[in-house]
Amino acid sequence: MAQNDSLAKFLDTAVDAAKRAGEIIRNGFYQTKNVEHKGQVDLVTETDKACEDLIFNHLKQQFPAHKFIGEETTAACGATELTDEPTWIVDPLDGTTNFVHGFPFVCISIGLTIGKIPIVGVVYNPIMDELFTGVRGQGAFFNGKPIKVSSQTELVKSLLATEAGTKRDKPTLDASTNRINSLLFKVRSLRMSGSCALNLCGIACGRLDLFYELGFGGPWDVAAGVVIVEEAGGLVYDPSGKDFDITAQRVAASNPHVKDAFIEALRQSE
Amino acid sequence: MAQNDSLAKFLDTAVDAAKRAGEIIRNGFYQTKNVEHKGQVDLVTETDKACEDLIFNHLKQQFPAHKFIGEETTAACGATELTDEPTWIVDPLDGTTNFVHGFPFVCISIGLTIGKIPIVGVVYNPIMDELFTGVRGQGAFFNGKPIKVSSQTELVKSLLATEAGTKRDKPTLDASTNRINSLLFKVRSLRMSGSCALNLCGIACGRLDLFYELGFGGPWDVAAGVVIVEEAGGLVYDPSGKDFDITAQRVAASNPHVKDAFIEALRQSE
Repeated sequence: MAQNDSLAKFLDTAVDAAKRAGEIIRNGFYQTKNVEHKGQVDLVTETDKACEDLIFNHLKQQFPAHKFIGEETTAACGATELTDEPTWIVDPLDGTTNFVHGFPFVCISIGLTIGKIPIVGVVYNPIMDELFTGVRGQGAFFNGKPIKVSSQTELVKSLLATEAGTKRDKPTLDASTNRINSLLFKVRSLRMSGSCALNLCGIACGRLDLFYELGFGGPWDVAAGVVIVEEAGGLVYDPSGKDFDITAQRVAASNPHVKDAFIEALRQSE
Repeated sequence: MAQNDSLAKFLDTAVDAAKRAGEIIRNGFYQTKNVEHKGQVDLVTETDKACEDLIFNHLKQQFPAHKFIGEETTAACGATELTDEPTWIVDPLDGTTNFVHGFPFVCISIGLTIGKIPIVGVVYNPIMDELFTGVRGQGAFFNGKPIKVSSQTELVKSLLATEAGTKRDKPTLDASTNRINSLLFKVRSLRMSGSCALNLCGIACGRLDLFYELGFGGPWDVAAGVVIVEEAGGLVYDPSGKDFDITAQRVAASNPHVKDAFIEALRQSE
């Protein structure tokens, strides 16, 4: 396990990278409305790429021996295997659809795994200026203040989050809306805000009680959020109830009290 | 029609009332996590009531002859008939579930109708400090800057918003999720953020392209938003395609380009 002074440096460097990338996203966010569609696509690609380059360069300068997995790089070069080496897993722009539309739930997600375990997590929403951080064993923070998951014990009073996802084939979509139908009989209400990383942070700070998503993009959507949730006293698990697998594109999260009831409700919704 | 100087005074007074009520909401918003459930219920009721009292008193002082319809008053005293008289229609706290959970989409909605037509609209989110205003014939504004609806022309690229609502009987819930299923095949994605008034403002500023909701609380959820959408160049209509009726608890909104396609998609989703 990394020493405390290394952990502090990992966190500071990641926060610094996220804040700098945040400036690029903020600039693009207020431009998207003023460019035609082709221009919007370019703006997303450019923003995504510019942020990933900035973040990777910033981290590489400090940690030249570390490995890197990013959404953009993976899209361009194919999947990179996650090893036991210290590995930065980065989504330079989570919430692309929100970015294009100007819906304020967008963020940068920067996670560090060592021995495949998420150790440091930084999620920054530059539009709402909300910074979520977590370091294994050292707690989770929202704009510098300690956070903890909700104390909700009842499903019926719980606020659930999920996403419609990007797949639009009939079997996926039918399964997805059937699941929502089944769950809505059991929870207080449903939120869909379009960012997996911010949903995890919502669990961490108790804005949300329950979150699941199936078929999201990749480990970059969850690597940072997992640390933040767990350090806020929450649990991250596979929606089936099995152990969470960072490479599986399946995630559920909640406080410990409602976990069993949530897993049972998810099972009944299949 | 009211004179311009009256309109300016209506708007200024409503903004002033909304900002003052915003302070009460902000105070409560950061407290809800620290009180037990019973205390939460009291906090919501007290906040709701304190905001409505503050807003009504503030407006009554300036406009003693005007009529008033509020969510809290209606809940306590039964429905108040909407007449042709100048009538302030107020939701002192839209997004109650969000308020309880600390999810940042909450707002105050203050609308003025004259001859049953919404003339002035003020929607203020005190957590994100976002103020949306509209005055019939004088444009719509977001934190003082003019706004307009999106220029989206295609359903498939449109961001849709709706809400799960509060009814949990099987026919309503099945109809609701079937509708969502049908629409998800046709639009880019779906957002549910828990505030009808803020969804209308999302249409007005182009964050959202399409919004519908059936069975929301009452005219106080839409009275302000309608002016803001229309003054931003958008359209508000019944989801069936018929004219919007402020008392019907049914609303749809979009820019003019996608209206027909949206209505057709809503019809096919029944």
